[in-house]
Amino acid sequence: MIIDRFAALATANAPGQEVRQAAGNVGGLMRGEKIPGRPVDFSHGDVDAFPPAPGACDHFSKALAAGGRQAYTEYRGSADIRAELSEALAAFTGAPVSRDNGTIITPGTQGALFLAVASLVNAGDKVAIVEPDYFANRKLVEFFGGQPAPVRMDYLGGSEGAGLDLVQLKAAFEAGARVFLFSNPSNPTGAIYSKREIGEIARLAAAFGVTVIADQLYSRLLYANQTFAHIRATGLPEERVLTIMGPSKTESLSGYRLGIAFGAPAVIERMEKLQAIVSLRAAGYNQAVLRTWFREPAGWLEERIRQHEAIRNDILRVFCDGGLLVRGPQAGSYLFPTLPRLVVALHDFVRLLRHQAGIIVTPGTEFGPYPNSVRLNFSQDHAAAVAAGRRMVEMVHRYHA
Amino acid sequence: MIIDRFAALATANAPGQEVRQAAGNVGGLMRGEKIPGRPVDFSHGDVDAFPPAPGACDHFSKALAAGGRQAYTEYRGSADIRAELSEALAAFTGAPVSRDNGTIITPGTQGALFLAVASLVNAGDKVAIVEPDYFANRKLVEFFGGQPAPVRMDYLGGSEGAGLDLVQLKAAFEAGARVFLFSNPSNPTGAIYSKREIGEIARLAAAFGVTVIADQLYSRLLYANQTFAHIRATGLPEERVLTIMGPSKTESLSGYRLGIAFGAPAVIERMEKLQAIVSLRAAGYNQAVLRTWFREPAGWLEERIRQHEAIRNDILRVFCDGGLLVRGPQAGSYLFPTLPRLVVALHDFVRLLRHQAGIIVTPGTEFGPYPNSVRLNFSQDHAAAVAAGRRMVEMVHRYHA
Repeated sequence: MIIDRFAALATANAPGQEVRQAAGNVGGLMRGEKIPGRPVDFSHGDVDAFPPAPGACDHFSKALAAGGRQAYTEYRGSADIRAELSEALAAFTGAPVSRDNGTIITPGTQGALFLAVASLVNAGDKVAIVEPDYFANRKLVEFFGGQPAPVRMDYLGGSEGAGLDLVQLKAAFEAGARVFLFSNPSNPTGAIYSKREIGEIARLAAAFGVTVIADQLYSRLLYANQTFAHIRATGLPEERVLTIMGPSKTESLSGYRLGIAFGAPAVIERMEKLQAIVSLRAAGYNQAVLRTWFREPAGWLEERIRQHEAIRNDILRVFCDGGLLVRGPQAGSYLFPTLPRLVVALHDFVRLLRHQAGIIVTPGTEFGPYPNSVRLNFSQDHAAAVAAGRRMVEMVHRYHA
Repeated sequence: MIIDRFAALATANAPGQEVRQAAGNVGGLMRGEKIPGRPVDFSHGDVDAFPPAPGACDHFSKALAAGGRQAYTEYRGSADIRAELSEALAAFTGAPVSRDNGTIITPGTQGALFLAVASLVNAGDKVAIVEPDYFANRKLVEFFGGQPAPVRMDYLGGSEGAGLDLVQLKAAFEAGARVFLFSNPSNPTGAIYSKREIGEIARLAAAFGVTVIADQLYSRLLYANQTFAHIRATGLPEERVLTIMGPSKTESLSGYRLGIAFGAPAVIERMEKLQAIVSLRAAGYNQAVLRTWFREPAGWLEERIRQHEAIRNDILRVFCDGGLLVRGPQAGSYLFPTLPRLVVALHDFVRLLRHQAGIIVTPGTEFGPYPNSVRLNFSQDHAAAVAAGRRMVEMVHRYHA
C-alpha cells in the first residue's frame, strides 16, 4: 500500500528537517543546565563558513544573460557544459567519458541517485547496499520495490581499506543482487575503499554481471597521503559502472542543486527519459555554474582541504580525549562516532543535544542499524565546531549510563 | 520489465529534445525548395522574446548573499516564502491555503506533477486522465504502474466549456478511478473548463471519493472576457484537491525550475518525503525568485496578456485563412491545429517542417491519439511567429494529400 511505502520514507530525522520536529518533552529528561555556546548545525556543511567556489555567481549571471538557450537545455543538460565536464571527469577518474552519451546533469547528486536506482531496480530485485551508508540508498531501493541486501562495513575494525565484508558482498551477488550501490568516500564514516577493495568489487561485479552505482560525491576532498581508486578505471566494462559526483560539498554549491552521473550510456539514456517526467532538467541557468568545477583557481582546492583537515584533527582529538570511539575520516567532512551506553534513547539524546547544547547532529539510525552513533558534518566554522565538539563530549558524560 | 517501462517513456519527440533527433532521410521526401525565414522553435516559449518577470535576478542575488540559510531550506521549501505564497495563492484561487502544511515548492511544475502522481497512484490503480492533455500525464501514471482511463475532451466541438465528456468521466470513476489528473487551462488546446464543468467534476469527485490533481500552470494568462473556475474553490474537501502552479510560463521563469503544489496537506506530506530522495529540494537560491510572483509591477501581467493575445489573433487568422482546423485558445499560449490528410506521416512532416521551413513543433501523438495534430507554443517574437505560421500553412499545402 502507498501509505506503507511513504511511511518507510520518514524524513523527520533526516538532515535539515530538524526545523519540523517538535521539541518534545526533552525538558523532563534534562540533566543539568543548558550548555552555552554558538549553535552548530552539523547536519550539513556551513556554506557561510566555506563559501561557494569562486566564479559561480558570474557564470550564473552570464547564463541568465544568454537567455532561452540556457533556460531550455536538453533534458540531460547543456551539451557544451557536458562536453567540458566529460573531459575533466575522464582526467579525474582515469577512464574515458563519452561527451555525447556518457553524461547527465541532474538536480544535485540526489537527483542522479534517484534516477540511477529507478533506471536499474525493478520491483522484487535484490540490491546490494553497504551498512552503514548514505541514508537515502536504502530508501531509494525500497521505494522502487527492491530488496536491500546489506553488506557490512567494519569501519572501526582497523582493517586495510574501508573494511567492506567482501564475503558478504559475494554472497549478495550469489543470492541474485545485480546492482551494487555504495558511496566512496563513505558517507557517514569518511572511509576510503582501498585499491584492493575496489579491485575485488570490480572483479565480483564482472563475474556476476552486476552494475555498480558509485556515489563519489566527496572524492575530491582527500586528506594528506590518501589515494583514491576510481572503480570506473578498473577495466570493468563501461556499461557496468555509473559514477555520480557533484559540486555540492567540497565546493559548497549545494544551493544550486547540481549533480552529474557519468558512464554507462544505456543507463544514462533511461535516466534522461525519467528526468523528463521528474523535473525536466536541472535548472538551466544553474547548470552554467558547473563551468567553475575542476577549474578552481590554483591552490583553492588544496587550501579548502587543508582547512577541513585542521578541523578534523581538532575534533578528533576532542572526541578521543572524551572517550568517544570514532574512525578518523580519510576524506570528506563526516564523523560517525559511536556513543557509550546512555540513560536516554538515541533520538532523545539527539533532541537534548539540540535543546541543551545547541548542536544538531543526525542519528545513526538514518544510516542503518546504528542506535549508538551520530553523524556530524564538520564543514563548519573551525572554532565553533571544536567548541561544539567539546559540548557534545560534556553531554555524553552527563548522560552516560 | 524495466526495459519496457523506459521504452514507454520515449522522449525522442518530446518538446525540447529535437536536438537529439537525427535529420533522417527527409531530403528524399521534400517537395519544392526550402522556405526561407527566421527559424522559430514552437516547442516551448521564447524567454528572449518574453523576458523573465522583473526582480527575479535581484531576489536570486539576495538569496545568494543570505548564504546557508537559503541554500539549505526544508525539503518542502523555505518557510518564509511558502508563507507569502500561501496568502497570494489563497487570494488567487478563492480558498484558504495552510501556510505550514499546505504548500510544497518543487523543481518546476513537472517536479510537482511527478511527486503528486507518485504520492497518489499505486501499481494497478486506475487514473482518469483527459485526451488530449499534457504529454507527461499518461507517462507519469504508467511509470507508477497505474492504468490511465482516458476521458475525451471534444475541444473542437464548439460546446460550452472545454468539452470534457462528463459521462466518460463518471464511467471512469464508476470503474474504480480514484485520482483525476487534468490541466486547466488545457495543454495543448488552450481550452478553459467552464464553471459548470468544474462544478460537475467536483460533484463527481466528492461522490466517488476521488482526489483531483489540477495542473493550473497557465491560469494567470487569461484572454479578454474569459473567467476561470478554480476547482479548489468549489467546496470539495481540502484533502481532495491538489493544485499545481508555477512561474515558468506566463512569467518566463522556466530557467529557474520552480513550481508549487498546494492544498491536501496529507498528500503534500508524502510529496515532501519523496522529494527528499528525488532531489532534496528546489534549488535554494532559486526559491527566492518566487518572491516576485504575484507581485509583478502594476500592469505587467496585463501587458503580457495583451501581447500574447495579439500573437494569438494573428496566427489564428493565418491558420484559418490557410484552412487549418483549430480551436481559439481562451488562455495560455498553445495552439493545437488539426492538419488535413498529408502525403507523409506526421513525424516525417514534423521533421520536414524543421528542415525545410525552420519550424519546430511537437507532434500531436505526444498528447494522445492525435496523428493529425501538432502543438505550437506561440509565446514567441510576434513577427517571427506569424511569418512561421505562414510557412507552416505553405508546407501543409505542399504536402496535402
